[in-house]
Amino acid sequence: MRPQAKTAGRRELASFRHPLLQGLRRALERGELTPEGCCAVEGPHLVEEALRSPVEVRALVAARSAQAHLARLEATAIGAPSYLIPDRVFRSISQTETPQGIAALVRLPEWKLEKVLARPRALVAVLVGLQDPGNLGTILRALEAFGGAACLLAENSVSPFNAKAVRASAGSLFRVPVFHEPSAEKIFALCLEHGLRTVGLSPRAAQRLDEVSLREPVAFFVGQEAGGLPREWQRKLDVVGRIPLAAPVESLNAAMAATLAFYEAARQRGLAEKP
Amino acid sequence: MRPQAKTAGRRELASFRHPLLQGLRRALERGELTPEGCCAVEGPHLVEEALRSPVEVRALVAARSAQAHLARLEATAIGAPSYLIPDRVFRSISQTETPQGIAALVRLPEWKLEKVLARPRALVAVLVGLQDPGNLGTILRALEAFGGAACLLAENSVSPFNAKAVRASAGSLFRVPVFHEPSAEKIFALCLEHGLRTVGLSPRAAQRLDEVSLREPVAFFVGQEAGGLPREWQRKLDVVGRIPLAAPVESLNAAMAATLAFYEAARQRGLAEKP
Repeated sequence: MRPQAKTAGRRELASFRHPLLQGLRRALERGELTPEGCCAVEGPHLVEEALRSPVEVRALVAARSAQAHLARLEATAIGAPSYLIPDRVFRSISQTETPQGIAALVRLPEWKLEKVLARPRALVAVLVGLQDPGNLGTILRALEAFGGAACLLAENSVSPFNAKAVRASAGSLFRVPVFHEPSAEKIFALCLEHGLRTVGLSPRAAQRLDEVSLREPVAFFVGQEAGGLPREWQRKLDVVGRIPLAAPVESLNAAMAATLAFYEAARQRGLAEKP
Repeated sequence: MRPQAKTAGRRELASFRHPLLQGLRRALERGELTPEGCCAVEGPHLVEEALRSPVEVRALVAARSAQAHLARLEATAIGAPSYLIPDRVFRSISQTETPQGIAALVRLPEWKLEKVLARPRALVAVLVGLQDPGNLGTILRALEAFGGAACLLAENSVSPFNAKAVRASAGSLFRVPVFHEPSAEKIFALCLEHGLRTVGLSPRAAQRLDEVSLREPVAFFVGQEAGGLPREWQRKLDVVGRIPLAAPVESLNAAMAATLAFYEAARQRGLAEKP
């Protein structure tokens, strides 16, 4: 954990009209960054993940009933101001059915796309119009678990700041570089420039995924849950691999298929467990 | 599809007090079978999956606005009575945010545990206290996709008839034999009797999963989402395998880990795509 500035102290807020709380509530509800560019994080486990990640914790927010937990977090989040609020105010902010009384605003690092793609044997996920926030979070978690370098969100993919996506990522959102890049043309140009093999997944592909070489830098393209990868994207791929499925199963869900693809790449590469 | 009896005709019901609708609503809401032992299924895609699976469709239920869709389903569901109901009654039954107006009651086959475990190179999932219905459904889908023979639900695992589990299984619940067997003792005795190697998953295991031989009959044990597999179960396993993860990721979610284990078994076995 990197050292942060000195303790900024704790404030008590009684009204949910305070701009910080309004910003937190709106960001959680809409699944967007705050106007100041902060990601809203809810739940003690996720806030702890943020504290052990290279993100800047801008504010800790806790319900009165979670005061003891807040004190423990403050010991780690040196420099971040913390806010104690009434339980009913916390409930009005929360997006979960059973609020646990802990939230935070964090600022993610500003990653450099060119630098990230240039990593040796980069493993990249390109998500084209992915709709389900749980799938996105799961994909980020698997991508990090198997040594992924970056995730590119294309077309109208769901926001990674959606509360369900943040939760399903189990903290990986704080560490995996995610970029918005809607254009197919730009993404394929970047892959070409950085020597990334562009690989799609389809149950109808001629080649089995475990027969496709994934040892070199690779970008996996994953399409929308219902419709899959659009034709105009498919046509540009270097290769399409098939995860063999026993009949009558016709497909796996997008997150499972992506997880298997990352695992297969890591397996072929020798499953390095060191980052 | 197996032939069913002749068309049983369509009825219109106006009140949600009709016992069939009450049973359907309660089963969907509670995630249980109806008192008659039927599984409640909601959504056109799932009902279509049921119709192409070896289950007995006991009733089709449709909202008035989905009448045209019902007519198409009736053409396939020969012998099953169908019920047309007002949209507001369907909404009162539905467990989804945006009801699509199609539901069914189906009777699953009565599988024989001994017969299923005796299959050559059986691949079995033992879920010990799994809590999340989405994870259970995902595991059933992956199990079927990779040629699994059966799923055993131990301890207080979530019900497979929970609407979220049925949905996440994408129809696999209608085809994969699922058994309730709470007792560890009985499960390990069954595995021994049928020559199933008992395999656990742990990020701290000494042996990598891809170095564990999974070619012979195998049962994978998956624990609860938060706590993992209880100690008293762990101690009885033949072997524990590790899915190597890049730091700082400490674990995958239960459904992802199980999916990777089934894939790894199928990969070692040559990924047979025929059932």
